Order: sequence, then C-alpha cells, then structure tokens
Amino acid sequence: MRGLVYHGPAQTSWDTVPDPAIEADTDAIVRVDATTICGSDLHIRRGDLPEVKPGTILGHEAVGEVVEVGSGVHTRRPGQQVIVSSVSACGHCPLCRDTMYGQCRGGGGWILGNMINGTQAEFVRVPFADHSTHRRPPNLPLDEAVLLAELLPTAYEVGVRNGHVSPGDTVVVMGAGPVGLAVVIVARLYSPRRIVAVDLSHSRLAAATRMGAHAAELPGRMVADLSEGPGADVVIEAAGDPDSFLLATRVVRAGGHIANIGMPGKPATLHLEALWRKNVTISTGQVDTFSTPWLLDLLLFGRLSVSPLVTHRFRLDGMEDAYEVFSHGPDTGALKVVLHRELPAPPR
Amino acid sequence: MRGLVYHGPAQTSWDTVPDPAIEADTDAIVRVDATTICGSDLHIRRGDLPEVKPGTILGHEAVGEVVEVGSGVHTRRPGQQVIVSSVSACGHCPLCRDTMYGQCRGGGGWILGNMINGTQAEFVRVPFADHSTHRRPPNLPLDEAVLLAELLPTAYEVGVRNGHVSPGDTVVVMGAGPVGLAVVIVARLYSPRRIVAVDLSHSRLAAATRMGAHAAELPGRMVADLSEGPGADVVIEAAGDPDSFLLATRVVRAGGHIANIGMPGKPATLHLEALWRKNVTISTGQVDTFSTPWLLDLLLFGRLSVSPLVTHRFRLDGMEDAYEVFSHGPDTGALKVVLHRELPAPPR
Amino acid sequence: MRGLVYHGPAQTSWDTVPDPAIEADTDAIVRVDATTICGSDLHIRRGDLPEVKPGTILGHEAVGEVVEVGSGVHTRRPGQQVIVSSVSACGHCPLCRDTMYGQCRGGGGWILGNMINGTQAEFVRVPFADHSTHRRPPNLPLDEAVLLAELLPTAYEVGVRNGHVSPGDTVVVMGAGPVGLAVVIVARLYSPRRIVAVDLSHSRLAAATRMGAHAAELPGRMVADLSEGPGADVVIEAAGDPDSFLLATRVVRAGGHIANIGMPGKPATLHLEALWRKNVTISTGQVDTFSTPWLLDLLLFGRLSVSPLVTHRFRLDGMEDAYEVFSHGPDTGALKVVLHRELPAPPR
Amino acid sequence: MRGLVYHGPAQTSWDTVPDPAIEADTDAIVRVDATTICGSDLHIRRGDLPEVKPGTILGHEAVGEVVEVGSGVHTRRPGQQVIVSSVSACGHCPLCRDTMYGQCRGGGGWILGNMINGTQAEFVRVPFADHSTHRRPPNLPLDEAVLLAELLPTAYEVGVRNGHVSPGDTVVVMGAGPVGLAVVIVARLYSPRRIVAVDLSHSRLAAATRMGAHAAELPGRMVADLSEGPGADVVIEAAGDPDSFLLATRVVRAGGHIANIGMPGKPATLHLEALWRKNVTISTGQVDTFSTPWLLDLLLFGRLSVSPLVTHRFRLDGMEDAYEVFSHGPDTGALKVVLHRELPAPPR
Repeated sequence: MRGLVYHGPAQTSWDTVPDPAIEADTDAIVRVDATTICGSDLHIRRGDLPEVKPGTILGHEAVGEVVEVGSGVHTRRPGQQVIVSSVSACGHCPLCRDTMYGQCRGGGGWILGNMINGTQAEFVRVPFADHSTHRRPPNLPLDEAVLLAELLPTAYEVGVRNGHVSPGDTVVVMGAGPVGLAVVIVARLYSPRRIVAVDLSHSRLAAATRMGAHAAELPGRMVADLSEGPGADVVIEAAGDPDSFLLATRVVRAGGHIANIGMPGKPATLHLEALWRKNVTISTGQVDTFSTPWLLDLLLFGRLSVSPLVTHRFRLDGMEDAYEVFSHGPDTGALKVVLHRELPAPPR
Repeated sequence: MRGLVYHGPAQTSWDTVPDPAIEADTDAIVRVDATTICGSDLHIRRGDLPEVKPGTILGHEAVGEVVEVGSGVHTRRPGQQVIVSSVSACGHCPLCRDTMYGQCRGGGGWILGNMINGTQAEFVRVPFADHSTHRRPPNLPLDEAVLLAELLPTAYEVGVRNGHVSPGDTVVVMGAGPVGLAVVIVARLYSPRRIVAVDLSHSRLAAATRMGAHAAELPGRMVADLSEGPGADVVIEAAGDPDSFLLATRVVRAGGHIANIGMPGKPATLHLEALWRKNVTISTGQVDTFSTPWLLDLLLFGRLSVSPLVTHRFRLDGMEDAYEVFSHGPDTGALKVVLHRELPAPPR
Repeated sequence: MRGLVYHGPAQTSWDTVPDPAIEADTDAIVRVDATTICGSDLHIRRGDLPEVKPGTILGHEAVGEVVEVGSGVHTRRPGQQVIVSSVSACGHCPLCRDTMYGQCRGGGGWILGNMINGTQAEFVRVPFADHSTHRRPPNLPLDEAVLLAELLPTAYEVGVRNGHVSPGDTVVVMGAGPVGLAVVIVARLYSPRRIVAVDLSHSRLAAATRMGAHAAELPGRMVADLSEGPGADVVIEAAGDPDSFLLATRVVRAGGHIANIGMPGKPATLHLEALWRKNVTISTGQVDTFSTPWLLDLLLFGRLSVSPLVTHRFRLDGMEDAYEVFSHGPDTGALKVVLHRELPAPPR
Repeated sequence: MRGLVYHGPAQTSWDTVPDPAIEADTDAIVRVDATTICGSDLHIRRGDLPEVKPGTILGHEAVGEVVEVGSGVHTRRPGQQVIVSSVSACGHCPLCRDTMYGQCRGGGGWILGNMINGTQAEFVRVPFADHSTHRRPPNLPLDEAVLLAELLPTAYEVGVRNGHVSPGDTVVVMGAGPVGLAVVIVARLYSPRRIVAVDLSHSRLAAATRMGAHAAELPGRMVADLSEGPGADVVIEAAGDPDSFLLATRVVRAGGHIANIGMPGKPATLHLEALWRKNVTISTGQVDTFSTPWLLDLLLFGRLSVSPLVTHRFRLDGMEDAYEVFSHGPDTGALKVVLHRELPAPPR
C-alpha cells in the first residue's frame, strides 16, 4: 500500500510500504476512507518530537471501513464504517477505567502516527479496536466524522470542559486555527454571553466570525477591550505560544479559568507574584476522546455546525500537497484539510 | 491605645495611637483579646507590599470582645466574643453573593492591616461586622479561635479544597511552616493514603510528623521517593518560592492537582512543553474565609487537632519580641505565636 | 393605597389599605410598577396554605421604584428601579451565606404575600432590601423584568440546574404551564438534543412548541415515544400532580435525574422496589433566587427569549379580572399575566 | 463440583453439578477460595426475584485463584489470585465507558448468581474477566478481600458518595445490618461530625458502636434526638423498608441528601406536599463496583478497619448452615459470614 513515511526532520514522502497486518488479537485493520492532518503532525515533520522514529507512517485521525479484526475483537467486524480515535485505549487499566484514555498504561494512549504507524495511508492497524473505534452512522459525512477522531474531542475536553464554559460567560479563545475555531463552535453549546477570538491573522479572525465568535480581534485590541470590565471568565489558549499564555493570565478575571490546549515548544512565565491573589485555575491536557460518542450525537442532532471547518479536500495521494496547503493556513485559508480515498463531489 | 504601626520598610514600633471609632454604620469596634502574626505581615514589614502606607497598624487576625457597634449592625452587640475574619465582606456585592469574599467589590476584601488599620493593637475597627465576624463559643480557647481568622480557612480553601484532596490520595505539602502544617492537619479530614511534608528545616520536618504527616523529607529525597510510582495526586505549594513551585510541577501525577498557597515575590517557570500532556490543574488563591463556620464546628467536635500549631505566647505589648521569634521560625521553633491581652496560664 | 387582600378561603378583594411604612432599618418601600400572579397565589386564594392569615396582601413578584429606604440600607436609594425578589434574604445567616436564601433563618425566606404583605398593591415594604432587590437596567422591559422575581430563577434553579440538563440530553418537561414553559426556555441554554413538553391541554402544547420544545405531547403519547429507547436523561415535573410525578419515575433512564418543581397537595407513590436498580436522583426545591443576576445578564445579552411568556396585561386595579383570566389559563390561553401601574402601549 | 443450587422458592441445596467451562473467550474460570452471602441472596432464596430460574447456582461475591482463561482475556492468567466483582462489565458499551457497570448493555451487569451461575460453589465462570476481576495482593486476607466484591463498593458508591458525606456532617444510617455497618465504616473516611446508626436490634446497635458510630439508637429515639436541631445532613437508608424510608425523609435537613441502598419489596410514600420546600435530593442505586480498586488501596493502607464485619466462618460445604446463621443475624449476631475452601486458623 501507500502511506506518508517520516524519514527524519523535514523529510517525509508518500511511499509504497507493506500492508499492515493484525499483530495483537485486539487489533483491527481499517481501510482509510478519509484522514486529516493535525498541527502535531507539523511538529513531528519538523523533528520536534524525537520519540517519533524514522520509518513511521504519520497521522492519527481517520474514518474508514473495517477490513479485518483479531480474534479478541468483539464489537467490530469487517464491513463496518468506523471513526478511528486518535487515542488508543486498552479499556482495562486503571487510567482507562477512569476514562483517562490518553494516559493508558495498558499499551495505548496517543500512539498512532507517533509510536506506531498511523492513518495517513491506505490502511491502518488500529490497536484495541473495541475501545478505540466508534461506529459511523451512514448519514454522517466523512468530512464531519473525521473531525470526531481528535479535533472536536480536544476542543471540548481540553478547552470547553476544562475551562468550565457556562451560560453567560465571556470566553476568550487565543488562536483561531482549526483547534481554536473548533473551540468556538463547541463553546456555543453552553450559551456564553460572548466569545472573543484572538489571532494575528485577519483571515483567521474572519473565519472565527463565520464560526460564531461574537468578536474577533488582534491581541492588543482584545486586551484593551477587556480592560474595562472584570476580565474574561474563561480563556482558552489554543495558539501554543508562551506569549499567548502570558496574555491569557492577564485577561482572565479573578476566579476565572485558563485552559491550555496548545503544544508550546518552550516554557511560559507564570507570574505567581500577581496571580496568587486572583484565584484562577489553569489546566493542561491531552485529549482522552471519551467525549466522541456524545459529540457524534450532537452532530447528528444538529446541535453543532462543523462543516465550515473543512476548507480543502485532497485525494490520499495528494498528501504532500495537502501538507503544504495546511502548513500555510493563515495564507492559504486552510483550516482542516481532509484526504479522501475517493474524492467526493464538492459540497454545494 | 497602643498598636503596632508600620512606618516604612523595616520600621515598625509599638506606639500610642488614637482609639478607633465607628466610621460606617456597619462597623464594630472590637477589643483585641488575642491576635497573631502572619507571614504576610513579615512581607509588609520588609516593604514588599507598597500599597501599605506608613502609619498603618498591622495585623489581620483577632479574637476579642465587641465593645461598640454601628447602627447598621444587626447580629452583633457589645459584650459578644467574636473571631475577626482577616477578610472583610460587604455581603451584598456580586462577588460576596458568590462567596468570593476576598474579591469583595463593596469595599471589603483583605483590607485589615493593609488598606486600613489592623488587629495588632488593643482595639480594632472591623468593617461589615455582621458578615466579617463569627461568634466564638466559650469553650473554644483563644489560641484555637484565632487560627480561624485566617490560617485554617487558608489551609482548607486554598490548599485542601483547591487541591481536591480525597481519600486514598498521596498529598505532598511543600513548605512546613505554619500554613503548610495547617494543611497537613486539615488534609487528614479526607483520609489521604499518605501526606508527605517537604521542607529544608529539620525542625519543621519534625513538626510535620507531630502534626500527622506520614513522611517528612528534604526536597531531594521527596523527589527520589516519588520517582518510582505515578507521582503525587495533589501537591500543595506553601513555601512561596518559585523553585518549590517548579518541583511541584515535576512530582504531580498525570491528572493531578497543584494548589498554590504561597505568596512568591517572583515569577515561576511553567514548563508547558512538558505539562501539556500531563492533564494537571494549577490553582492560585487568596483566602475567602467562607469556611470559617464549618471549621469552627469541626474544631468543637474534635475533628481537628490544632493546638500544637501554637508554639509561643506573648502579651500584646510584647509584639516586637513576637515578630523576632516568629520571623526566625526555623531556628526558634516558632510556628504560630499568639499575643494575648491577658496572658493565660500555660497550657498543660 | 389599594391592594389585593386575602380575607379567607376563596375571598379576596381589591381594598383600600394603609400605606406600608419602614419597620426595620433594612427595609425599603417600593412603588409597584409591575407585578404578576403565581400559581401559588391561586393555592393561597383557595385556602390551601393555612399559614396565610386573613388580612394579608397577596403577591410576591414585582418591579418598581424605590421610594424610601431604612437607615440600614446601603446599596439602594429612592428613585432606583428595582426587581423585588420573591425571596427575602437577610444575607448573613448560615443558610444565606450558603446561598440557600429560601431557607433563610434570619427572618427572610418566602415571606412576601405569605407571612407579610405582598406585591399585589400600589406599594410594598421589602425587607432586607440590599439583598432582596436587584437593579433593573433601563433597557429591560417591565414585562421581562418581573419574570426575574421568581419564574425564571425557579425554572433554572429548581428545574434545569437540579435536573443537571446538559448538551445532548433528552429532557421531558411535565406540565406546560408558565413554570414548565419557562423551563423549556431556560433548558435551551444547554443545547439539549430534545425537549419534550407534556400536558393535557392542546393550547399549552402549542405554546410549548412556540417556546422551542422539540416535541409537545399528551402523557400517553410521550410514554409510547420514550419506551423504545433508554428513556429521558432528565425529567422536570412542573405539573404539581402525584400522577405526573409517577410518570416521571417511569420515563427517566437509568442514571437519570428527576427534578420536582411542582407544589403537589398530596403525597406521591415512590416505587423503590423498581427504582432501586435504576440509579436515579430525585430533587425537590423551593427557589432561592440566587440566579437572578445571572439570568438578568442572559436576558440583556439576548440568550433567553421570554417575551412570549407574557400573554395578558392589566392595570393594577384590574387585579380581580387578572386572577380570573390567569386561573383559567388552559382555556384563556393565559400564561403569565402582568399588572402594570401604567399600562404600556401594546407590544408590536 | 459442588454448589448451592436454587430449586424454587425456599428450596436450595448443596448439590453436585457440572464444572463450569469457558463459554466466551473473555471468560475466566476461578476456583472459589472464599465467598459470602448477601441480603439479596436471601431475597432470591425466598423467591422474591422471579427472574432467577430454578437450577441457578447462587452467590455473586468471591475471591479465588484463576484456573483457566479464554483466549480473549489479556490481563489475567491461571495462578493469579483475584477478587471476583459482583458486577460483570463488558467494558466497552456506552454505559461501561461511563463507569455505570451495573447497567452494562454488553451482556454484563449483576448477572452472577442471578442470570447465570454464581460464586457459592467450588468454581465459577466469570464473564469479561479483564474488567470484572481485580488482583488480590498477598497481604490482603481473604476475609477482607471478599468484602470488596460488593459490600464495600455498595457502601461507598450507593451510600457515602450518593449521599455526599462531607467533613462535619451529621449522618444517619438507617439499618445496622452488614450494609449499614459498612456505610458507618466507609463514611468515617470523610470525618463527619456524627454518625447515628438506627436499628430495632440492640445487638446490631452495639455492633454499630463497635464500628465507630458516634450514636446508635432505636428509630423513635433518633427522631427525638434530631428534632431539636436542623436535622441530618445525610440519611442513608440501608434497611430496605418503606417505613424506614419515610423516616429518612422526616429527619433530613433542608438541603440535605437521602441515599437509598435498601432493596425494598414495596413502594414508599413520598410526601412531596411537605418535601417540595425542603430542597432535598434522593438517590437510588445499584452498585457499579467502579470503586473497588480505590477501596482496595484504602484497605491496604490501613484507612479502613473492616475485619469486625466478618463474624462467622464456614467451610464451603457448610453453605446451608451459613445461610441459617446469616438469615437470623439479629439473633445470631451474624454480620458477614465467609465461606472458605480451606478454613483458616481463627483470627487472633
């Protein structure tokens, strides 16, 4: 088959590689009908995650058809359409029992496209298939389903839930890339008073407004805007940048919450000498994807409008082009790019 | 009357000053029967809090007798024994209605011995007396009652509650001064598996063991001790030091909690590049003292043993000696020093 | 002045009575610009609440102008427009500190139009005015503001919050009178999958659909509708009827919540022999009105659309007609009737 | 092998039956080293649960050695000592993912000794062995380990947790049989002010005092005792009797919690006409056993003292005698009776 192989920093190529095979009896092999590229894939491609070994197929989000299951897989069978979660979960270890799948001690966690071969390929081996895949209803389009593999659970679990977004809140979302915009969409479930999206890119600010943000501003203006009142109830940091985190600690109100979603490469400065009186909470988190079934229901019942998040579509073999377009999102206007086995007709 | 007046950095003296008088109709005048010194008083004395103006009487914790009340005070009257909370609360503003008394927007908050004259004196004017004092039952000794003015609520609200201490938890308390030791005592209400106290002073580690810590260790040993397992469920930072905070972020387990109580004078470094995958929460907080009535009940019903926290007693006019002893706690063995109007017989 | 006086079961009249006067220094006198009638007023008029003494002026909801304040009132002054909460709260007792204003032990609770004279009059004495009134912004119409005195806080606190309504939930609201319909409106803040309103009156089912219920059904049909799936996540009982409560326990799913808002006059049967395996929670509650400021903000920011709840307007002196119309709501189509000092122009 | 077979109402016998065999690949066969009898077994024996078919081996609690596993079992292997949970959980269905194992839709739930053969036998087939068994550490005695199969998780999950027991609470436990006494022990983890055990049997009241209840009283005296103050913060109903439930609703304070553990055979009366103003929550529940690993740790670390709960020991073949002794607990003094494959030396 063909897949995107990491050969070392800044070196990836769409190669012919061996087909994946069942290795453990809880594995399934899934034919990839749609996959996507995540900001973390860009980090890996740059060589920022040294734990990723050359020779690894990248990608950790997919939707597709089960083609084979191990003898220990009981709830999935060939022919089923599934969403492949970015987090593999053994389901039985103490952390999985506590729904902290991302911290699985039974051999799971975020391993796809990281410790083992991933989803940016024609087929993928999915460990712990009973626990790490979800049935895709026929009426849920591939483009939306693939967002359930990681993007939407991250926006909810690490952003909206950790940030305790509640009706009437003023919510600031730092960074209007795909994750930040997904936060805007998911946060609206809780009827905040006002969602303020912040980014340096005007095209992304425009996108934030389209997704339902009540205001979209450059960082400096946002600070001015919030300096009059008590500050933000919730700040969700989705830019992955220490300066942006610092700004988050400045605009949060006393008693407010900061939820960090970003993957910053460097430490941030925490002004405890000012924050100690401010009664804030700061949370960090890697997604567990426990919320995927719930988000799937919300999508089916029309409570979330996510289709504008997908801006570009490619065939699987256009993977390298897709990386180019995605990695220059502020210029290309790309948010999520979805790669399809069979390119569907363009959406109306 | 006499009181401890701040005259500028490193300059305080036990001076004759005018008696306090009712200024607002919600004020009460309280005769100070017992007061104490807090770590923040040392900061003020050093000049670290420039908002404290020369001429201010210091101190924000007291127990005493009401001698006069304004016409708008309805639930207190002269002759009653009361605990004066370190936090004054108007009781009616949005933040007070939300029990965030420390952030009161109606003229309260931590103002005693800070924005207005405080409790290290023979008498003190207490604003918002209905909301900012608590009746002292006759069978609650002065030495214990004065700990309810701030120390115990801080240990509970900012440490134990913000840290989500639960039965079976491994709890690390960084800093075994009075606040850290109070945390040890209060945390035991929740039956943790193990409380590990950490300090550089061997005398304070010994005190931690007396207060019920299951282990008391130097920082280096604690790290070694926790490096085998999953880490601490809860770390409560009560040393007020950026290095100690950094250590806290290293020993907390994935999914664990860090509660900051300390008042560090400098920023800390937050290694988001490592913490983003660790799903931790970090909380900061200034006490609200909403828990004082609950802690008072727990004291009365024998669920908390706090008397070992009080190591030294002075007469009010020994204030300057008391500061000396308290400020050299690691050497003098002083934890809380209590100053009495009438020095009681030594405890048996 | 004139007011609606209760003279004993089934006997009320619009009488000339003495003007109210300040009795305690925390009182305010408010000129009633708008008031309304609650289902509990009908109970009182029928004589169901023997604690209400003949001679009492009825009513516990109002909006109006402060005309006089006692010397102990600090945050209100004559000329201010206020919402008078149905619950008076001393603000200082242990239950008020815990925001359980309805259970106030300092002389408050639900006393207006019950233990003391109420709001269905030209003027009303409001105890504990600092804590029991809220400023009305000029751009909030009287008709909407008066719903904040009790109806909307009840729908939120006792229904939506106690029922733990969450995004994606199936919510059943038993009883589509004013309270049930307010629940429908407030529940939508949390993006439930589906709100099913249940009533015996077709006109009220039609009203439920107008308020945003996704389905509106007779009890029998609702049971059939839910019998296929796992049942309702949340059932909010707002009919005040033991049979309706029984139905609630049948349609709730395992692990679901039943929130009782109704004021049933008779006991209900609780089938513990069936429910013990079902892991349900049942809550009862009288409103505390702690949520009024939050709901006021949500109204101002357009997150709640409540104007269709007000179906009829009268002048204050049309009180007896208003009771007639309101008490036959299923026939007259009346939901909330609002009585105005000066009848405004009809809404466009 | 031999096992206790239910032959119809009031008919059980210790019979020779076929050895259990692996039926599904996720099964394990466990040699029963210790088992016990539950109050629900008495209900079944009387014929109260018609879903239990004649021919079923009773019992749902055991500790023993794994002797065989199916090919789909990954974390257990022959020779391991395990606790067999009373609740079997597939681990993958939506309810298991939500830790509601008792409501498992994947074929689990409380099925042992109910829908399938149980643990009161020499061997037992355990479905979903990875998820439904827990390793027993060698230093945890069989007598204590067997209490983790159901009794202690029930006391915690359905009683203490659902009742929201907190430090300083007044907790009333209705019924001082094995479950009620386990509640007393587990509730002490949270440092309540006072635990009042209530029962009609003087021997059980004495047992309650030995387990750490602060008071142990007949129902009438308890009511008198609580009538002075605000009532109980938490009432845990473990008698399984509608009259006891009724009493629970009378002694709970406004804002308090009632947790129902009992399995009453008849409906209770719920006085909503009085409770609607009282802001109470009532919970019902069947155990999920999600808390077993946590309780195991608490036992190992000495935070729970449960050995006094085991009053009688028998050999497995003394099963019928054990039922006699257990079913007359108030007379025989029996609390938990434990049946051993090899009777250990009597405890010192």
